[in-house]
Amino acid sequence: MNSSITNNESLRIEPIGHIRSDFISPFGIPRQPGLANAARASLVLTPPYDDPLSVRGLDEFSHIWLTFIFHLSPTRWKPLVRPPRLGGNAKMGVFATRSTHRPNRIGLSLVALEHIDTRNGVTLTLNGADLADGTPVVDIKPYLPWLESKPQARSGFAPEAPPLFQVTFSNQAAQQLAARPDSENLSALIQQVLAQDPRPAYRRRPDTRIHGIRLRDIDVRFRATQENVLEVIELAAI
Amino acid sequence: MNSSITNNESLRIEPIGHIRSDFISPFGIPRQPGLANAARASLVLTPPYDDPLSVRGLDEFSHIWLTFIFHLSPTRWKPLVRPPRLGGNAKMGVFATRSTHRPNRIGLSLVALEHIDTRNGVTLTLNGADLADGTPVVDIKPYLPWLESKPQARSGFAPEAPPLFQVTFSNQAAQQLAARPDSENLSALIQQVLAQDPRPAYRRRPDTRIHGIRLRDIDVRFRATQENVLEVIELAAI
Repeated sequence: MNSSITNNESLRIEPIGHIRSDFISPFGIPRQPGLANAARASLVLTPPYDDPLSVRGLDEFSHIWLTFIFHLSPTRWKPLVRPPRLGGNAKMGVFATRSTHRPNRIGLSLVALEHIDTRNGVTLTLNGADLADGTPVVDIKPYLPWLESKPQARSGFAPEAPPLFQVTFSNQAAQQLAARPDSENLSALIQQVLAQDPRPAYRRRPDTRIHGIRLRDIDVRFRATQENVLEVIELAAI
Repeated sequence: MNSSITNNESLRIEPIGHIRSDFISPFGIPRQPGLANAARASLVLTPPYDDPLSVRGLDEFSHIWLTFIFHLSPTRWKPLVRPPRLGGNAKMGVFATRSTHRPNRIGLSLVALEHIDTRNGVTLTLNGADLADGTPVVDIKPYLPWLESKPQARSGFAPEAPPLFQVTFSNQAAQQLAARPDSENLSALIQQVLAQDPRPAYRRRPDTRIHGIRLRDIDVRFRATQENVLEVIELAAI
């Protein structure tokens, strides 16, 4: 065994592409992939990685792994974090969580691959991505179900998807939504995103405070006046 | 959507720890995790990441993701690679494979977590790791089965684990093995590693050539005189 390794290595990596998505600010991005399939997301490869040959055969896979950088997170990290699912009180080790505040800020996300466009460079259309617009992606790998599907795996304090909130729309919000060309898809997106309660864990109780999350070109303003229900108040221009 | 992104970003990451394993040379390392559970492997975290707090709660998970760097692979990459499972002839896009020769050299491996030792820094005992001794690890994440287990996912040209070879031992090899204190476990390890046929894809036919792979402190010398059978000739000192 090699015991001569020291800890002064530094590795340089560079993005192979960037995400374009509906999630234009960090607040409101789903905390896991697969829940907001109304979200539009694509991965645009950048030169020299955008050679169509580099994705030959990838269309034979329904799901892919994206390794990316949480570029909106601070580079500073702490050994303990407060997972939202534990209500923001209990602290867990950063490596026992999928927190965005972590050493090297490396993210890993399993997304459905919808389409590959190689007419002008390479653009992958994704489904169920939980990635901020502008996210630098550093690797793509095919998902191997016979290797990576472990339904019996034990997952302790994160045994299942967090429960979902009910989402309602005020009359004003419903009218604003109806007037938009993307009303149907945007309505689904807002519901999917708010159902996960994007409020910070320490604020997760009914109150009269109005919160906002930015999706596409709008600021979705909402409040939580009842337990487990979020009401969309209005769609404000950004 | 942010279209102002240029491709001149460079990201610096550093190892949070290193692998210690039976795989002391790149030749013979299983091409996927989980197949060689007789292999000894551990992940030793390095300062400042070796704070026991950073892994608090990780023992609640049976499986973990390791993101690591294929440090023995060249930094040079090509858009097309030849997956061993396709016999070394067909070329696929590098991002459609799990090849070690890839941009940024980032590896991803799902391994079973056996034990966490926090008495002196942090050491994780792993099972089923397919990682070279000395591999720099850049992230640890818990495996979330309700999110990452997708048994129905389509995986095209890699629909299942590659077929296994039969492994036999010459009298000489059997005697050398029996004389070792780790004979039982080493025998299992040799069989698990050779069953995957570690020969380069272009050499995968019966011949009289003698090959060698290094495991622990020995050079396992073998040949493939019949179809789908590898015979261990001798265990040579390194």
